[in-house]
Parts: sequence; structure tokens; C-alpha cells
Amino acid sequence: MNREDFDTSIMTLGTAKIPSPLRTRAKGAGSGCFVSEKDRVLVNILEDRIVKTIERGKKPLSFEQGGPRHKIFFDPTKLRCAVVSCGGLCPGVNDVIRAIVLALHYNYGLRNIYGIRYGLQGFISSYGHELMDLTPESVAHIHERGGTILGSSRGPQDIESIVDAIERMNVGLVFAVGGDGTMVASAKIADQINKRGLKIGVIGIPKTIDNDIYLVDRSFGFETAVGIAVNVIGGAHNESISAPNGVGLVKVMGRHSGFIAAAATLAMPDVNFVLIPESDFELEGPKGLLEALKERLILRKHAVIVVAEGAGQKFFGNRDQELDPSGNLRLHDIGVFLKEAITPNFKDRGMEINLKYIDPSYTIRSASANANDHLLCGFLARSAVHAGLAGKTKMLVGLCNNRIVHIPMEASAGKRKHVDTSGDMWMSVLETTGQPHLRN
Amino acid sequence: MNREDFDTSIMTLGTAKIPSPLRTRAKGAGSGCFVSEKDRVLVNILEDRIVKTIERGKKPLSFEQGGPRHKIFFDPTKLRCAVVSCGGLCPGVNDVIRAIVLALHYNYGLRNIYGIRYGLQGFISSYGHELMDLTPESVAHIHERGGTILGSSRGPQDIESIVDAIERMNVGLVFAVGGDGTMVASAKIADQINKRGLKIGVIGIPKTIDNDIYLVDRSFGFETAVGIAVNVIGGAHNESISAPNGVGLVKVMGRHSGFIAAAATLAMPDVNFVLIPESDFELEGPKGLLEALKERLILRKHAVIVVAEGAGQKFFGNRDQELDPSGNLRLHDIGVFLKEAITPNFKDRGMEINLKYIDPSYTIRSASANANDHLLCGFLARSAVHAGLAGKTKMLVGLCNNRIVHIPMEASAGKRKHVDTSGDMWMSVLETTGQPHLRN
Amino acid sequence: MNREDFDTSIMTLGTAKIPSPLRTRAKGAGSGCFVSEKDRVLVNILEDRIVKTIERGKKPLSFEQGGPRHKIFFDPTKLRCAVVSCGGLCPGVNDVIRAIVLALHYNYGLRNIYGIRYGLQGFISSYGHELMDLTPESVAHIHERGGTILGSSRGPQDIESIVDAIERMNVGLVFAVGGDGTMVASAKIADQINKRGLKIGVIGIPKTIDNDIYLVDRSFGFETAVGIAVNVIGGAHNESISAPNGVGLVKVMGRHSGFIAAAATLAMPDVNFVLIPESDFELEGPKGLLEALKERLILRKHAVIVVAEGAGQKFFGNRDQELDPSGNLRLHDIGVFLKEAITPNFKDRGMEINLKYIDPSYTIRSASANANDHLLCGFLARSAVHAGLAGKTKMLVGLCNNRIVHIPMEASAGKRKHVDTSGDMWMSVLETTGQPHLRN
Amino acid sequence: MNREDFDTSIMTLGTAKIPSPLRTRAKGAGSGCFVSEKDRVLVNILEDRIVKTIERGKKPLSFEQGGPRHKIFFDPTKLRCAVVSCGGLCPGVNDVIRAIVLALHYNYGLRNIYGIRYGLQGFISSYGHELMDLTPESVAHIHERGGTILGSSRGPQDIESIVDAIERMNVGLVFAVGGDGTMVASAKIADQINKRGLKIGVIGIPKTIDNDIYLVDRSFGFETAVGIAVNVIGGAHNESISAPNGVGLVKVMGRHSGFIAAAATLAMPDVNFVLIPESDFELEGPKGLLEALKERLILRKHAVIVVAEGAGQKFFGNRDQELDPSGNLRLHDIGVFLKEAITPNFKDRGMEINLKYIDPSYTIRSASANANDHLLCGFLARSAVHAGLAGKTKMLVGLCNNRIVHIPMEASAGKRKHVDTSGDMWMSVLETTGQPHLRN
Repeated sequence: MNREDFDTSIMTLGTAKIPSPLRTRAKGAGSGCFVSEKDRVLVNILEDRIVKTIERGKKPLSFEQGGPRHKIFFDPTKLRCAVVSCGGLCPGVNDVIRAIVLALHYNYGLRNIYGIRYGLQGFISSYGHELMDLTPESVAHIHERGGTILGSSRGPQDIESIVDAIERMNVGLVFAVGGDGTMVASAKIADQINKRGLKIGVIGIPKTIDNDIYLVDRSFGFETAVGIAVNVIGGAHNESISAPNGVGLVKVMGRHSGFIAAAATLAMPDVNFVLIPESDFELEGPKGLLEALKERLILRKHAVIVVAEGAGQKFFGNRDQELDPSGNLRLHDIGVFLKEAITPNFKDRGMEINLKYIDPSYTIRSASANANDHLLCGFLARSAVHAGLAGKTKMLVGLCNNRIVHIPMEASAGKRKHVDTSGDMWMSVLETTGQPHLRN
Repeated sequence: MNREDFDTSIMTLGTAKIPSPLRTRAKGAGSGCFVSEKDRVLVNILEDRIVKTIERGKKPLSFEQGGPRHKIFFDPTKLRCAVVSCGGLCPGVNDVIRAIVLALHYNYGLRNIYGIRYGLQGFISSYGHELMDLTPESVAHIHERGGTILGSSRGPQDIESIVDAIERMNVGLVFAVGGDGTMVASAKIADQINKRGLKIGVIGIPKTIDNDIYLVDRSFGFETAVGIAVNVIGGAHNESISAPNGVGLVKVMGRHSGFIAAAATLAMPDVNFVLIPESDFELEGPKGLLEALKERLILRKHAVIVVAEGAGQKFFGNRDQELDPSGNLRLHDIGVFLKEAITPNFKDRGMEINLKYIDPSYTIRSASANANDHLLCGFLARSAVHAGLAGKTKMLVGLCNNRIVHIPMEASAGKRKHVDTSGDMWMSVLETTGQPHLRN
Repeated sequence: MNREDFDTSIMTLGTAKIPSPLRTRAKGAGSGCFVSEKDRVLVNILEDRIVKTIERGKKPLSFEQGGPRHKIFFDPTKLRCAVVSCGGLCPGVNDVIRAIVLALHYNYGLRNIYGIRYGLQGFISSYGHELMDLTPESVAHIHERGGTILGSSRGPQDIESIVDAIERMNVGLVFAVGGDGTMVASAKIADQINKRGLKIGVIGIPKTIDNDIYLVDRSFGFETAVGIAVNVIGGAHNESISAPNGVGLVKVMGRHSGFIAAAATLAMPDVNFVLIPESDFELEGPKGLLEALKERLILRKHAVIVVAEGAGQKFFGNRDQELDPSGNLRLHDIGVFLKEAITPNFKDRGMEINLKYIDPSYTIRSASANANDHLLCGFLARSAVHAGLAGKTKMLVGLCNNRIVHIPMEASAGKRKHVDTSGDMWMSVLETTGQPHLRN
Repeated sequence: MNREDFDTSIMTLGTAKIPSPLRTRAKGAGSGCFVSEKDRVLVNILEDRIVKTIERGKKPLSFEQGGPRHKIFFDPTKLRCAVVSCGGLCPGVNDVIRAIVLALHYNYGLRNIYGIRYGLQGFISSYGHELMDLTPESVAHIHERGGTILGSSRGPQDIESIVDAIERMNVGLVFAVGGDGTMVASAKIADQINKRGLKIGVIGIPKTIDNDIYLVDRSFGFETAVGIAVNVIGGAHNESISAPNGVGLVKVMGRHSGFIAAAATLAMPDVNFVLIPESDFELEGPKGLLEALKERLILRKHAVIVVAEGAGQKFFGNRDQELDPSGNLRLHDIGVFLKEAITPNFKDRGMEINLKYIDPSYTIRSASANANDHLLCGFLARSAVHAGLAGKTKMLVGLCNNRIVHIPMEASAGKRKHVDTSGDMWMSVLETTGQPHLRN
């Protein structure tokens, strides 16, 4: 994939002409802390392919590097900003809110920062949610708590009404923390702003506990989620060894991508079967899960199964397809399905098992961030602020090859990163669990 | 309640004549570490009542104090012991197993200690569970892990077959870690042993995460459970504040007694409603939970409800009454019931709420013990060993007024401790939550 | 010890005539939640001794039970209260402050609650510390943090000046959270108040992480401290096994009493030597620590030593005796002493060892309370409020046989609870560690 | 820096001709999981520079990507391996040992894996340390514990004797987990092996809690260390706010690089001054630390200082320069120095402060790895095994731009990564703390 195939240019509201206030602030530090527009981070970093691309006269895929710019677009003394958080919870949302507020306040001197309550609902007057003033004092300790102090909600709202509200508030810069649906909505908001000829920036900080943002190494909250999932799996293991033919079944997040399931398994090597959306599996048949589980139980008398919520959706083939308020296809509950499929199946085959089913989703997503996610959230938020002040819009910030980059909203929205089932991580999972391929 | 009303005498297998090997071991320590049969711990310790009892020439209720005796009944060089764990998991079971093994080995010099696998099943040959040899090496680190290395199971087994197995194994002392059902079964085993004229002791270490053992202050695992429940409730609170009209609903253990719910609420004061088996409540009506919840949501926009699993069973009045394998009445799931009752009710009343239901039971009960439960398990186990070696039988060990005491199995089995709804703890809960009485 | 030998009567400011506002509040709850002055908790609860005492016509030692009274002394609409925290940190101080404020506000309707900054210094105007207004909002989340929001300080201040300040502030009730020195000072303050004929109550909530309050089962923060100490000892064990002749040496709190050292050892059974103030030990000689350590290292190649800070003070016999600002004898640092004594000694004897010395004191004492200490702090604080409102003074609240009682300040101040070296706990420690007596 | 300036080629023992047993194992997985020798990871990934390098006909700096090869050099049925851990502790060493053993056993079928006890000492017979057999069973749970089951030691040993020992044991592959000194020694061992014409591979897994391996993004244990440091700093903050003019001073690891100090500060934003080796600072003078601290205390009454152990070594200018057993310059203790410098300085200036000094080093380094470090250790260890089996030698594995790469030992040894004081991380630290430049 080269640059020709994929537009990585970032939309701007106009020329950034105002010297950054950081210029004078970073006294002895020299100008080394500023990033030039020419600093672009390669996406594919295998030498061979890059050399070939360049030798063929093409441009390799790369993204603008995040960070403070020498010149900014907005006059900080006049700018008002809004921050909104949407969708399900994820460890670190409060960290992001906090770091945005602190960077706007201390780096750029902004004084009017509004928190939009309960996601996009907060823009729509009929909901009656009041604004929240965000100050360094009001956000000082919020990173110590999970959830989001702004509140959140799912589902779309009328784009025109949102832009009306942004105009009414005289807000020049909107920071949206949310999932894929939020990024899609944010892109539409930016388009509507553009259509109206307004100079209002929209910057996304993508939030997905599933870690499946396209082209992004790692999203905030993921490591925290894995850490908690590991403890829960440890408990499931304790349950499994404590009962005759004990089976611990844990459902973890992962609507389309099994990163949490895979990573938690590698960190807590008591798992025997990992089921993820990327790897098809059968339940019945000589090589299906039920048979493999039986063999395991006969051999070792206990087993632990970790299933990502998006795995095995084919088993619900004929059932109703519902959408959730965010417009995502509502997944059928594979955890409950497996629980209800496994125990009777063994009973029918004359083998009594003791299955314990654990769904720790809310406990994981409502936790506060761990130290490393505290850091990542801070870097993402500060980069979002730098990009926004520089007049960039319709973009999101993300980690690519360990550097924060700017990604156009369209480039990421609607796509997803997946566990590469022929790659090192999944191979390592198969080796750790010893699980067979579960396909007939 | 006086001693006349309540037989607190402990059955013995015979006169303890053998000098305790601890005598020579506790060199410089003098004999202060031994407990006399006359050391009895008062149950009711309010001066007034004790004085009145004594002045009326009656004996106040008291229990034998646990601890090493000067003389023991069994010859340690010939004694074989068995340890069995039954029923649901509880933090600390491995601690108890470990401390029993270490005390038998190091204090009394025993070399043959058998672990019975998977609860009472392990005594019944048809299950085919093998014995596990328990040594200081094999139990050295097991306290660091939740669950039970012996495995467990629910449900009764044939008493005569169990005693047959004990006889076949030449075991002189059985330690049973389990809940109320296990104590009932253990009493029957002791009776059957007595009937056969055998000299085999049966000592119970009662296990109930609900903390509802009659006359016992605190059972092992309870504090650990409260500590974890507190974290889960914190997550539910984060969920509730993060959504418009967010409601966090957490079900905690407590079949008949709301101790975990009450204690966790006092330790994590973000709870607004606590529902326990001891305190009746209405759902409907002007003073019912639904109306009170509505008022709370209008006022504060979010709420946290903690419900003990045994609360509100009256709502299932007409439904089937099933027994679980342990012979306990299978409770209907009040958590799921509330979840399914609350959301539609609000919808019907035109108020959209966001309820998140969390059931952390398996995660709590499979955890390893915290430091304080490590200690309690150690003291209980060592007291059980001292009592068993001294020839006592058909008794359990428990904490009464901060001291370990011997309680006859019949005195405790089938009875339960409850949260006193006019006492200090429940009053404190009501004050902390500010919840109304929820009765019309 | 009988009541004749020990005055347990609590001083009062006058007759409590005002009906408690709790009377009307605890609607359905009946009056069961009130405590009568006749409810007294026995201290010694062994039946035999109590019976003998009573039969000899004596009164057994007992304390007033804590809890709300039917009648109170102060008019809540006019009362102002002050809270002060003194001495070193201990997990739970913020819990106590918070629960005092909430109980005063919600139970009794008080509106003027002042926080005195930085211990007794806050009463002395020359320090210039401002008062802090304490409200339910300002204390809502403080229990989640270690330390004290009021600040603290060590050392005495002029008693008359303190009482002057209390008078000037029109404060009727002072709650003092602090150690033994603070209780001594509080008793003097109460005496000075009495001398001036004022109606001002002084209630102490004793704070000692060492758990050595005389006649009190357990003080707040102790269990939290043990839990953290256990983790640190685990790290010391990891250090010890990872080096040839590795020795992990951990110093824990315990100026006069080795409760933390003993309890942590029982919960983390990798400790080989425990040194506490109550049990004398030799360093040199055939049975001294150095020789015992050498034997252990030859046998197992690693060892863990836990030493309470007050142990082995005899080794500093000839050195200067300093007082700290609290007036306590400044202890010599036994941890550093042992570290500096052990390594060269082994070097001289031709054996190279690797000793790692860990002093986790500040990390332990600055932690927030665990769930169980959250609870204990709440009960202590509410009992202190009930006692204060009822007009009691010059007393402290404490846990005795699992119940909260009122203890006259003189009865506890200057005395200490010790580890009974011929009792069950210390015997269990000796058995767990296998350590010899270390005396020649 | 281009490839011309920097030899990145990896030494091999010979041509890898044997088909990898993984070929048949990874059934359905295709060959996608194998890595080709042509897969090289770019080090500098800014597009501009890479394009310029290539356009100038030069080769950009890149490293071989780690992972399984199609062909291997050693015959797994005949190969014996040794694992050794050296130097100070770091979270994750047991993870690395475990994952090496499992990968050798399950991926390649090896059966003879030896653990060398206590670092390089274990190769020298005069120490008398016995070998440890490493099997999947013996390492199953070791990742749950800190430290190293093999033991470790510091300091060099005679290279020829080490190679003699390796020859005697018929070991074909040595895995060395250790710091910079160990990598230097390993390179010498590889040279000596080469000189003797032996076919023995030496693979390093670099261990540095300081995260300062040259060209490597992140080393194992670092994130765990930051997570624990964050908690300790939180405690120091609690200490500082709880005393008048309270100062919490925390020393963290970082001999030459302030990564832990900087990262922990970004994750725990209560720090006011961070002192690292890379950023010079003055103590005295109008812009020195003492004056800045005074201003902070006057303004806010409390402060937290985090100092990396390698900071401020210039203050020891005239003191003795000692080497530790690893041959590193023994650092003077900047933590103790600051503690002893600050308090008297303030006293002299008539301002009483309360400084609490915390050195959590042993507690941090002896901890077990967090979930993310569990993962990293697994990937590093498996890559080391793949590289070793493929006949590579005198190389180490490390994370570069999120991929595991092979780095020649000479390329990394003796060099170090530093905090870029004009880069984004340090700028963020300065903004978070608000600290001035501390230079006159």
C-alpha cells in the first residue's frame, strides 16, 4: 500500500501564521521540540518494501507526525474549545479529557473549555444537558477514576443540529473521544462545518478497548483491559481446577478483533482454548470445540476457554439482526451461547462437567487506566491539542510505530485492524494453548 | 441464652493421655501457650446480662477456647489424617489446607496426610478420584492461589460409604472444610463413626463467604470478598455517572444474610440502595424501589444498587422451587430479575435509563485470600489440628469475640447469623446510602 | 484486673437531656439502635475468671459500649466542632475525618465543622495555619487517599493556648485523631477545660499503626499496613533467592510492639527470622542471630529477616538518647544497624553474602485504607460522634472484643499492648519461621 | 546514521539447512509465520530521511526482524541449551526463562535445558553451584514471581573458564539474560568460542530496568517498574501534603537515563521536580533547586521531588570513585545527598520543612511483571530461541519500532539510550511539573 492508494493528507482550516506560544515557553529547550510538516512517519517499516517503493518512484505510505508546530492557526486568546466523549467506557477517557484541558490551559493559555455532557446528546438542546466548565482544578484528579466525568451516550444525533450548537457556543475547536461511529459522525460534522464555510476544527481521539483501530498500533485503555482480563482468567482457572471436569469460560471484549483475548492468553498461560472473530471454529464434529474440550477434560480434568464477544457469530445465522443505538450490529452473546451449548452436550454424552461462565466486561471497561495508559492518553491528548491549534481538522491522533501521527478520519473510519492469524502473535497463542484448529 | 439452653460440650474420642509433643518444642516459651479445658470464652459479653445470669445461679453461654492442649489423644507416630474441601469456592481454602498440613507435620510430626479430591465424592470409589499426598513441599505456595488444590464438589454422598472409605484408609482424623451442608454431613459421619465404635475424629472448618455462621464473628474469606466487591461497586459507580440516568446494579453473594452487601456499602460509599434478605422491600408502589430510584435519578441522574443474592425472593412466589446439588433451595436470580424489571418499567414511564448489571460472584470467590484472611485461616487450621489431636470430634472451629473456639456441629448447623436490621451496622448502611425504607 | 483496680468511668459535661435527633430518623428501625449506659462490654471474657470475680462480689472490668444515646447533651443547632489529626501518618485518617463530618452533618444536623491544620500547631496562632471548613462535599472522596487532608505535625503545644483557641472559635466538641502523645495532650486539654468550667468535650480516636493501644483489639490502619508489609516481604524473598547467600532484611513499624512484624510473617510465610521488641535476642555467640543465619544460609542459601523498628535497642546501649518532637525516645535504627553488622561479620568469617535492606515505612503509612479499615474507621468515627454529642469527654473510642467501647484517656495513655511471647500468635510465628530462640 | 556507519549484520555459526520443525507444526497457518532474512526493520522511520538516504544510493539503518526461520542450523534432537541470568533484578526475568524453556521444548522438541545458577558464577566450578534442570513443569508458574529462579550475580568471570564449562556441558546454545556488562561478556564469550572454532551460539536478552538499551524502544520490566514507582510517588505526595512544608523525595532507578523518573512523573502528575542524569541542575544559587523548592513551598506548602539515581553525580566531584562488582562506576547516593542537603539548608534559612525520603528500588526490581511485560518477555524469549536455533550468535533481541529485531552485541554494548531533553517526553515532563530549568 503506497501513498498513491491512500490519501493521508490532513485537511486544514487555513494557514497557520501565529507563532506558537510554546516558542517562548520552552526556554532553554531550543526548538527541537517542534515538529515540522515534513516529519512523516512511515507505516510499513520493512526496509525491502520501502526501498522498492522508492526505487519505483512511488511514495511510501506515511502519516504526519504529531506534536507542537512553530505556527498555529487559532488565536488562543479568542478560542473556545469543547470536549465530548461518546460510546462505551474505556480506561483512560478521563485521562484524555484531563490532558486536553491542561494542554489547552497551560500550553496555549485558553480559558474557555466546555465539557459536552453525555456524548453527542449534549449538543442537542432537547436533551437539556447542561455544559460543564472544564478547568485545571476541576480535572486535577479525574484520571484516578474510571468512566468519564462528562458522561457518554451511544447513537447518532442530527449533524446539522450539532453544528448549530457548536456555532451558538462560539466554539472553534471540538475534541471528540469516541469509537468508530464517533469518528464517522465527526467526519460528517467537519464536512458540514466546511460546507458552511466555518473555521471550526474537529479532532478525534479514537477510543476502542478492542485495540482494532486501523493502522494504529495500540489504542488507549487496551493494556489496562488486558491486565484486568488476566486476573479474571486467573480466577476462571481457579474455578476450573476446583471442580471435577471444571471448565472456566470467560468472555472478553472484541467485537471484530480478538486482541484482548489473544494478549490476555499470552500473559496468563492457563488458557486452553481461545476463540476470536478472526479464526473460524466449529462446535460440533470430530475436530470441533466440543470434542477437543472433551479430550482435554479426559486428559487433564479441567479447562479454560476465553472467547472474544465477536467470535462464532455464524452460530446465530438465522436469528434476528438488531442494531444497537450506535448503529453497530448487535452481537449475539457468544458467551451465553457457549455456556448453554456446552453443558447439555456433555450431559447428553454422559459426562458431567462444571462450567463457570464469567463476563467481566463492565468491570474492565469502567476501571481507571494503568500507568502506561496514563502516559499514552497524555501524549494522545497533547498531540490532539497541538494539531487542533495548528488548524488541522477532520483527523484523529493515533500511535503508529511508536510515534503519534495524524490520520485523516476517512482513512481509518469503517476499517479495522485484525489479529493476523498467520502472524507471530496468533502462532504464539496457538503454541501457548496447544489448541487444535477446531475446524473439520 | 444460657448454657442450660444450648449444649456447648464437645464430644471426645477418649481421654487425652499422651503428652503433647509441643511441650518439648516450645522451649523457652513456658507452658503459657497451652490451653486448659477450663478456658471457656463467653458468647454474650455484656456485663449486665452475665452478672444477672451468674447471680441467678445459671451458667452463661460459653465455648471451649481453641489452642494446643497439654495432653493429646492420638499417637502422632501412628495417625493418618485426611483433608477434604466441599461446596463453593471461598478465598482462603488453600490457606486452610496448607496450615493443616504444616501443623500436622511440624507440630505433631505426622507423615501421612491425604487430600481427598473433589469434596465428598473423593470418598466414594465409583467416582474414581485418586488421593493426593499432602506434604509441606506440595502445599508450600498454595495459599498464593485461589480455589482449592483438592478440588471440591457439591451435594451429599452416602454416609456409610464415606465411613467405609475412612476406615479402609486407616485414617484417624478427618478435617472437613465446607459450608453448612458439609457440617451437617460431617456430624452424620461422626455419628456413624461413633455407632461403629471407631476412634476417628471429625473436625470442621466452616467455610461461608456470606459470613453467616451462627455465633461466629467472622468466617475466613469474608473480608477478601468485601475488598473485591468494593472494587466492583466502584466500577458500577463509574458506569452510572457515565451515562444519562445511569444505574449500576451489582449482585453480591449472600443467600440468607446481607453481610457482604452491607459491609461493601460501608466501605464504598457510592451506593444508594442496598437490598438484603433480612430487610423486606417493595418494588412497586409509592414507597417501592422503582419510585425511590426514579426520585434519585431525577435528583442526581445516576444511582448504584447493591443486591444480595438472597434478597427479594418473595417476587418469585409462584415459580418452581428447585434444590441445588447441595440440597439448598436454588435461589431465583434477583439480579437478573431486577435488571429485567427496572429498565422496561422506566421505559413505560417515559424515562430512559441506562442500567448496567454486574455479577462478580465467580471472580470474588475464586480470588486468593488477603493478608488478614491468610492469618485467620492459619489460626483456624492450627486450632482444628490441636482439637483433632486432642481427641475432640463432631465440632468446628470458629472466631467468637476475637478468640478461636470449639463449637459442636449441631449447635451451628442449620442456623444462621443475620444482619440485625435494628443494629448499628444496618443503621450505618441506611445513613450512608440515605435510602428510604422501601415499604409501602 | 477488676473494676476496682481500674477506673473505667467516663467523665461527662453534664446530664444529657435533649432527645437524640436519631430518634425520629430511624423510622421503622425501632429503638434497638440506641445504646444504654448500662451496656458495658467485658474486657476479660474467659468464663472462669468472670464467674470467680462475680462470686467474690467484685465487678469485672468492663467498658461502656459505644453507639448512639437516646438523650444527648449538646444542642446540635448551636454546636460547633473541630477535628484535628496529629502525629505520623496511618492508613485511614482521612476515613475517620470523613466519617466524623458525615455523622455530625447527617445524623445530628451540624453545620459548623472546622478542620484544624497541621496537628496541634493549628490551634496556635503564631503558626498562621488557617482553618479548613469541613463539609460533606469537601470530604466526599478523601477516604480514597492516604495521608490526612488536615495535615499533621508532631510535638506538644502549650495547653493553655490550645484551650484559648478552642474558646475563641466557640467550639464545643473537639475530635483528636492521634497517637499516645496526642491522647496525653488531649487529657490535659480536657483537664484545662474542666478547670475553666467550660462545657467543651474532647474525644480521642487513637491512631497507631503499631496496633499497640492498651486494651484495644485492633486499631485502624493496622490491617492495611500488614497487607502492604506482606508484599514488601515477598519482594525481599525474591531478592534473597536471586543471589548466592541472599539475605532480605525488612524493617517494619513497631516501636514497642511487634504486631506488624508478627502478623506479616504469619501471612507471608517466607520469613526465617522475626525480631520484635518483646523478644530479646543476641547477635553474637553460638545461639545468636549471626550464627543462626549462617546455619540457615549453609542449609538453604537464602534467608529473610523481618525486624520491628523497636527491636534490639539494647545494642545501642551507650549511644545518645534523643527525643523526637513528639517526646518519644528516638529509636536507633535497628535496620541499618543489622545491615551494617551482618555483611562485614560474614565477610570476616570468609562467607560472602548478599544482603538487601528494605525500609518501606513511609510507603506503608501513607497508603489509603483497605476495605476492612474503611469499615473500622467509619464505626470508630461514628461512635466518637455519638459519645461527643452525648456530653462525654476525656475519652477515646476503641475496639474491645469486637465491639466499640469508651475508654477513659488516662486508662490507656502511656500504656501499651504487647505481643505475648508465650501466647498463640508468637508461638505460631516461631513455628512458621522455625527460628531458634537466639539467646545464648 | 546509515547502514554504512554501523554494522548490523549478525554473525552465524553456519548455513541453516535443517527444515524448521515449526513448518509441520503450524498446520493450517501457512508459511506466513516465518520470517525471511530479507525482512529488515528500519530504525529511523521518518520518511524524509529514508527517502534521502535511498536516493543518495545509501542503505538506511535497519535490523533483521526476529521470528522463526524456515531453516535452522542446529539439530534439535542433539542440542543442549543453557540459560543464565546476570546482574540486578528486573521484573520479568522469570518470564524470559520460562518462555525460553517452553519454546525450546514445545517448538523445537529440545529435552536438555540447563539453568546456570547465580549468573556467570555458575560456569565456574570453584563456586560449586549445581546446575538446575529446566523443564516445562519446573517453570510452569515461575512468571508469577519476581526475582530469578536461577539466581544471579554481578561481576565478570574468566571468559576462558566459562567457555571451558560450556564445552564440558556439551551445550550448543547459551541464552544470557543480563545488562550491559553481561552483553559485553557475552560478546567476549562468543569471540572465544569462535576462536576455538566451536559451533556454539550465544544469544542475549538484554535486561535493564532503566530502559536505556541503545536503539531499543522499551526493555522488559520497565513498564512494571513505572507502575510501581507511580504508587510510591503517590505515597510521597500523601506524605508531603500531610505535614507543614512537607517534601516527599523519591529516588528511582536510572543510572544514566531518566526514563523511569520521567515516565512515572507523566503518569502521576503530583510531582513538582524531576531530576535526571540527562539534565544538569544546580542546588545553590538563585535558580538552583533549593531556591525553587523554597518558592514552591511558600506558594503551596508541599512539594514532591523525584530523582533518578544517576542524577547530580557532579556534586560528588571530589569523592572516591569506586567500581561495583559488575565493573560499573558505583554511583554516589544522590537521594541521601539531597535529603541531607535540603533539610539543614532550610533550617539555616529559618524555614522548617518536613522531608520524607523514600528509596523503593528493591521493592520495584523484585516485583513480578505486569501483563504487558509478561507479553514482551514472551516475544523476546521466543525470538531469542528462533534466532539461536537458526545458528545466529553474538546478538541480542530487542524491540525496535514495535518489532522484535536482532542487534549485534557490539552495536548495543557500551552505548545507551537517553531521555532527549529537547524532545516531546521531557517537554511534557517540564509542562506537567512546571519546574524551572534549575540552572543559574
